[in-house]
Amino acid sequence: MTSESSPFDFTVDSLGPCRVPSPLNLGGHPFIREGSRTLVNSDLAAYQEAGGDLDTVPSMETAGPREHIFHPQYLTRAAIVTCGGLCPGLNSVIKGIVETLHQEYGVRDIYGIPYGYAGLADPQEHPPIQLDADGVDTIHMQGGSILGTSRGNQDVELMVQNLVNMRINLLFTIGGDGTLKGASQIYEEVKRRNLEISVVGVPKTIDNDIQFVGNSFGFETAVYQSTPVITAAHVEAHSVYNGLGIVKLMGRDSGFISAYATLANPVVNFCLVPESPWHLEGPDGLLKAIERRFRRKSHAVIIVAEGAGQHLFEGLPQRKDASGNLLKYDIGTFLCEKFREYFHARDIPMTLKYFDPSYSIRSVPASGTDQIHCHRLAEYAVHGAMAGKTNMVTGYWNESFVNVPIPVATYDRKKIDINGPLWRSVMACTGQEKYFDPNWGRNVSPA
Amino acid sequence: MTSESSPFDFTVDSLGPCRVPSPLNLGGHPFIREGSRTLVNSDLAAYQEAGGDLDTVPSMETAGPREHIFHPQYLTRAAIVTCGGLCPGLNSVIKGIVETLHQEYGVRDIYGIPYGYAGLADPQEHPPIQLDADGVDTIHMQGGSILGTSRGNQDVELMVQNLVNMRINLLFTIGGDGTLKGASQIYEEVKRRNLEISVVGVPKTIDNDIQFVGNSFGFETAVYQSTPVITAAHVEAHSVYNGLGIVKLMGRDSGFISAYATLANPVVNFCLVPESPWHLEGPDGLLKAIERRFRRKSHAVIIVAEGAGQHLFEGLPQRKDASGNLLKYDIGTFLCEKFREYFHARDIPMTLKYFDPSYSIRSVPASGTDQIHCHRLAEYAVHGAMAGKTNMVTGYWNESFVNVPIPVATYDRKKIDINGPLWRSVMACTGQEKYFDPNWGRNVSPA
Amino acid sequence: MTSESSPFDFTVDSLGPCRVPSPLNLGGHPFIREGSRTLVNSDLAAYQEAGGDLDTVPSMETAGPREHIFHPQYLTRAAIVTCGGLCPGLNSVIKGIVETLHQEYGVRDIYGIPYGYAGLADPQEHPPIQLDADGVDTIHMQGGSILGTSRGNQDVELMVQNLVNMRINLLFTIGGDGTLKGASQIYEEVKRRNLEISVVGVPKTIDNDIQFVGNSFGFETAVYQSTPVITAAHVEAHSVYNGLGIVKLMGRDSGFISAYATLANPVVNFCLVPESPWHLEGPDGLLKAIERRFRRKSHAVIIVAEGAGQHLFEGLPQRKDASGNLLKYDIGTFLCEKFREYFHARDIPMTLKYFDPSYSIRSVPASGTDQIHCHRLAEYAVHGAMAGKTNMVTGYWNESFVNVPIPVATYDRKKIDINGPLWRSVMACTGQEKYFDPNWGRNVSPA
Amino acid sequence: MTSESSPFDFTVDSLGPCRVPSPLNLGGHPFIREGSRTLVNSDLAAYQEAGGDLDTVPSMETAGPREHIFHPQYLTRAAIVTCGGLCPGLNSVIKGIVETLHQEYGVRDIYGIPYGYAGLADPQEHPPIQLDADGVDTIHMQGGSILGTSRGNQDVELMVQNLVNMRINLLFTIGGDGTLKGASQIYEEVKRRNLEISVVGVPKTIDNDIQFVGNSFGFETAVYQSTPVITAAHVEAHSVYNGLGIVKLMGRDSGFISAYATLANPVVNFCLVPESPWHLEGPDGLLKAIERRFRRKSHAVIIVAEGAGQHLFEGLPQRKDASGNLLKYDIGTFLCEKFREYFHARDIPMTLKYFDPSYSIRSVPASGTDQIHCHRLAEYAVHGAMAGKTNMVTGYWNESFVNVPIPVATYDRKKIDINGPLWRSVMACTGQEKYFDPNWGRNVSPA
Repeated sequence: MTSESSPFDFTVDSLGPCRVPSPLNLGGHPFIREGSRTLVNSDLAAYQEAGGDLDTVPSMETAGPREHIFHPQYLTRAAIVTCGGLCPGLNSVIKGIVETLHQEYGVRDIYGIPYGYAGLADPQEHPPIQLDADGVDTIHMQGGSILGTSRGNQDVELMVQNLVNMRINLLFTIGGDGTLKGASQIYEEVKRRNLEISVVGVPKTIDNDIQFVGNSFGFETAVYQSTPVITAAHVEAHSVYNGLGIVKLMGRDSGFISAYATLANPVVNFCLVPESPWHLEGPDGLLKAIERRFRRKSHAVIIVAEGAGQHLFEGLPQRKDASGNLLKYDIGTFLCEKFREYFHARDIPMTLKYFDPSYSIRSVPASGTDQIHCHRLAEYAVHGAMAGKTNMVTGYWNESFVNVPIPVATYDRKKIDINGPLWRSVMACTGQEKYFDPNWGRNVSPA
Repeated sequence: MTSESSPFDFTVDSLGPCRVPSPLNLGGHPFIREGSRTLVNSDLAAYQEAGGDLDTVPSMETAGPREHIFHPQYLTRAAIVTCGGLCPGLNSVIKGIVETLHQEYGVRDIYGIPYGYAGLADPQEHPPIQLDADGVDTIHMQGGSILGTSRGNQDVELMVQNLVNMRINLLFTIGGDGTLKGASQIYEEVKRRNLEISVVGVPKTIDNDIQFVGNSFGFETAVYQSTPVITAAHVEAHSVYNGLGIVKLMGRDSGFISAYATLANPVVNFCLVPESPWHLEGPDGLLKAIERRFRRKSHAVIIVAEGAGQHLFEGLPQRKDASGNLLKYDIGTFLCEKFREYFHARDIPMTLKYFDPSYSIRSVPASGTDQIHCHRLAEYAVHGAMAGKTNMVTGYWNESFVNVPIPVATYDRKKIDINGPLWRSVMACTGQEKYFDPNWGRNVSPA
Repeated sequence: MTSESSPFDFTVDSLGPCRVPSPLNLGGHPFIREGSRTLVNSDLAAYQEAGGDLDTVPSMETAGPREHIFHPQYLTRAAIVTCGGLCPGLNSVIKGIVETLHQEYGVRDIYGIPYGYAGLADPQEHPPIQLDADGVDTIHMQGGSILGTSRGNQDVELMVQNLVNMRINLLFTIGGDGTLKGASQIYEEVKRRNLEISVVGVPKTIDNDIQFVGNSFGFETAVYQSTPVITAAHVEAHSVYNGLGIVKLMGRDSGFISAYATLANPVVNFCLVPESPWHLEGPDGLLKAIERRFRRKSHAVIIVAEGAGQHLFEGLPQRKDASGNLLKYDIGTFLCEKFREYFHARDIPMTLKYFDPSYSIRSVPASGTDQIHCHRLAEYAVHGAMAGKTNMVTGYWNESFVNVPIPVATYDRKKIDINGPLWRSVMACTGQEKYFDPNWGRNVSPA
Repeated sequence: MTSESSPFDFTVDSLGPCRVPSPLNLGGHPFIREGSRTLVNSDLAAYQEAGGDLDTVPSMETAGPREHIFHPQYLTRAAIVTCGGLCPGLNSVIKGIVETLHQEYGVRDIYGIPYGYAGLADPQEHPPIQLDADGVDTIHMQGGSILGTSRGNQDVELMVQNLVNMRINLLFTIGGDGTLKGASQIYEEVKRRNLEISVVGVPKTIDNDIQFVGNSFGFETAVYQSTPVITAAHVEAHSVYNGLGIVKLMGRDSGFISAYATLANPVVNFCLVPESPWHLEGPDGLLKAIERRFRRKSHAVIIVAEGAGQHLFEGLPQRKDASGNLLKYDIGTFLCEKFREYFHARDIPMTLKYFDPSYSIRSVPASGTDQIHCHRLAEYAVHGAMAGKTNMVTGYWNESFVNVPIPVATYDRKKIDINGPLWRSVMACTGQEKYFDPNWGRNVSPA
């Protein structure tokens, strides 16, 4: 998952030296030492091969409360903005930021920006909402974002001017790849104007595709939420002769949700992700593979990530959404059509049920350990921001919370290593390779 | 819900007089008296107006175990078939039939017919499965049908011949309108051949649209299951500016699920059912109503039954599914398209999320009191069949289980009375009438 | 369930003739006709045997909105009080009352009394809370009562004086047997003082033991909630050799929850309720029955209602709770002790797991169709109160909402008829009778 | 969590050199390199302070499939045994072991030992069950253990003799501290007899208290399961005046479940664990703290780990369970009694509700990401066993699966560091410290 000869600069930007004592009452718990670093890689051989020079091995800044901070509590006015699509735990992160600022650092001026960057660009239309610990007490039990969200870019200079007008010195952005890039642009403009505003992100990606941040918040809950729909697909497929259940899950460029949902629900027979190539037609294509599966088991369940099989649409024009994300062609309905055609042409009975549950999966609150993860990411984001860190996101790496520069986190998307153990487990769990193999059917008697 | 001058003949057909003592050990509980009747109507005025002649008021045969039965246990071979779409509780009904036959009546030869009438028409391709109490012990915890199901009619003479070949004298059919009509045809053919085969149905309709049978099994569970998806629609709609969540639910001709789901989830703002007319365009149309709602609340949640608004497709050709049901045009995606066009043309921001959860709602097991309802309907179906009743279904009416002739149950569909208290509650719950009213917006200041 | 020669007077008390037109906008839906009655019994034979005189058969007042009402909207000030133990749906009932008063009848002065009758007796200590439709919008999603509750009686004259001081003319009491008897006392005092205050109850009893009101609100949800704990008891019992899972459920005098929970979860092997007698010791006692069960199946699951087996404590002193309810001895822990002693003395290995989930079952919100039931009971309570009805509760009987005099509803507790079909189904489901039978084990070889 | 100057020897025992090629078809995925090590500590400073000698820093053997293995597939006969209390995911681990052996390594002789070590000691009484991939296909959806379990030690020589008699060369033990120590004794006896039997454990501890293995399987699910009961406790406490909800959770010596459940459910006001000391009496005791809480908020929710507050029972005799675990005194009921006495004596109204949900939490199946964790731990246990590793357990550490010697894993229990960030988060979440502080109440006006 990491490279020893890392091209990445893990140095976190900072507004300046920490100059005031932290008001944080740790009750005997120690502050984090300045200069604490967490190793990027826990594989001993990697270090030995690199010659073992500990001063050059890649490491990240360990996150945590500092004995001295940059922003004095009495001067601090914070703003929180949530952008992009919904994700479990958004409200838990908002709650975590507000509670840590309010109860731990004694900050009283905390504002929620409505409807994402759109609200930051136009506070007249969408006035900020004052937040305090009481107001966020139970919001973790609701899905969605109490602040509202929106897609798309806004004028960076305008947003920074609004931050200045509102006298904000801490901006927390909760969003994905595009949101974080926007945060970096805000940081650049803040720097150009020589302002003392910390820009700190909590990376949100239900696809779990942001690098160096560990499992993103909401991902665990999304995997839990996949169970009812996959169970339904299996029941529907299993209750008719040659039943085919197709479930489209999130995953534009990375198939983590599909892979984890497959492993968590071992009734899935085929898992199709963007990282792994496959054909539709031909003797080793998907259509033939399902036909082989029907001959043996009379039913099949397919999980397909929304970004899988985009090569099948080659030649068609490209489209983008409001956030600038390349719009994927709808592989789910495309597969439905192709399966219907294929089996109809061959006069093979087949009943297809299609499931597209994305909104139901992403709009629930985070629960259990994921709930904790959201809150703690938020706590550490506040610690970083109060210490004057900027242009950074909070991550969790090798059992430590870490501060990661936004450019590192957004340099490239995290993807499934199809030669690694996760994908290997998916192959073992589904056994799909054998159905794709044109020779497999010949030597095996039906069971 | 019923008419005093009923056109219905509630007399249940029978193969002949009950001639053998029931092997049922009731442990001191009384058998049902022959001739027990349950009043169709519990409204006293109805009787008084009718002149109060108790011998002519409509009543149904009260169901229950009889002291004497028609089919001797040692001659009895039963078959169970499940047809049509899935519905919560199918396996519970199967379990109830098998357990009552096996444990109560001591019947040992019980067969499950695979894949609906298709299996009854072709037992070579789909051989029957022997069932006993142990084998069905935990099937109520699974969704779907362990027997499998299929749509469509089959050759009636062939099916009856197969019943004869398998020496079946009890046929239990679990299915909807079409299935029950098929069961009636089987009954006619059985009668024509002078066979002693009881044909007894357990009416299955997730739409709850079968007459004189009370709430159909699975309906209660379906209402429960609607909550997560409606909550998701509300969260998605509420988390953006002018968010619109549209949920399509089952309901081809009757909107019961939509109405109940609305009442059970009072975040729904519009409930559209087949029984209640509405326009799309114009000052009192749905598009305008949503625009009014946005001006006041910035979000809306719509539930639309699949059979609602079919008048909008007038002039388009009619299509049928394998069961002969008229295929509905897809009102859900149609509305999505129209809303997008409408708001785009007016340059009003709007974010639409569409939910089509039908398969997820219908493929779960029945739970709680619905689980009990399934089992008890099955018990009473067995009591009826063993007593030689035929061409009947089991229902629940005015707190009693009743035997209902199939022709009565399938004479017409049960529909929401839009002048009755149920629909009145839906209107009160949603307040949708005011948004449809072109004059309403003018006198009210935005709140 | 009822007697034709009914000792009950179903006439509902009223403050006087309805004198003002209802402000209710029914949108074309009809008002309920004055004098509408619902038959108590739907069994035709009962009428025929009674000679068929329709004017004397027992019937109840059909509930619903009346064209004329007693309390003018502009004079109306309503109070709501919740008393006794928690029950699913309390908040839904509060919401239903507030919304119907506010949105339908235009009543603006609605007060919640905190902490039950204690709050009504001492409004200085616990000041009333003003309620409106917005404030109760989402309370149905929370368990418990937003008003708080308490047990026990309070000074009736004091409570009535406080109603007068607060100028309340509608009092809604949500509570069980004791609460309703208290409401009747308030009604008597109101009558003595010649006040125009309607006292209307919504009967709350998780035990489902109030007569003539159909299934009480929250009961359906309680049955649903029993599933996880019964499943846990079964898993624990099944995972060890001679495992015994004992689940104590609510049911002081009536075992409805235990009976329904057994039927809804057919892994239960023994269901013990107050209505059905059994021994502990001796050849036909429970201890021996479990030993027989272990010999055959190596595990057993028992559901015991809290009021079952109280005869085992005969001779011990009686105790009462704050509401005056006779305190039951703890049959659950008593059984645990006896089982441990019995098997230890016989050197038979046995592992016992005890579950007492009552609070977890009763503190959830109502859901699905039960949610609807709560809201509609509340709607009809408001219709009754506005029409000047008093000393009554709302019920649901033979598919109609009805107004029932409190003295009728509280005359006696509803109990399981152990000669009726419900208990017969429980016996069939558990098969427990054979294990109690000392002769059964002798003739059957272990299976 | 780890010490640089580690007293631990992380060298994993082995039966001998890997001598046969692995039959595993990795489909292009690489085998794990011999000698791969995972760093115990990811804190860079730890290495720098230690002088940076990479050859001496503590590291663990990285787990995974090896190119050569020790046990030839055709000679391999495996046994699986589950011991001790239930835990979510037991069946998932069994499924993972069987599937990996069967489908990946082609092993056909796999036996489940019934009822834990009791079954291994007496196979005549409890004959082994043959297992294959089909038989375990859906067991992950059930709680408990399909094999059954038991507590307590058995004769080690007898168990080893039975392994020899059954010609077992792989023994998988799934259990906690005591079970693993038993496995080590089996390993010693195996070694003494010079047998080629691999003894490999999958550590089971719902308390999450085993060292160097990361989060144990089932722990995540247990945290999820705590939500309904804690919500119930909060609803009950909140619905009465001075309501007190007490929830006892698992945690004999380590309070991880209590701490995580508190963070996952931020309605908890007090979290009491074995690691953190507190008084009952006195001005800074728990009784007074609750009294202070009531004065401000009129309700409180306490989570107490079963092993907390054992110092309050000092002087009482020690008792042990069948597994030799020291039996804890029941802190839950003890607290109930003390609270009742305290508030009764002071005439302060108080309503207490006590919850003891342990069995309900531990008897569910693992779900979501926890389900995946179970299966993968099992896969790696098989890889280790096939490679001839022995006297080891599988763990997950710094993002890698690792092989850990049993003596290291069981050397001491993992405990919450009350000076570390986890406990700090719990203190911030509950704010309980201020209620314990006798001076806090004096300066703050009631809010």
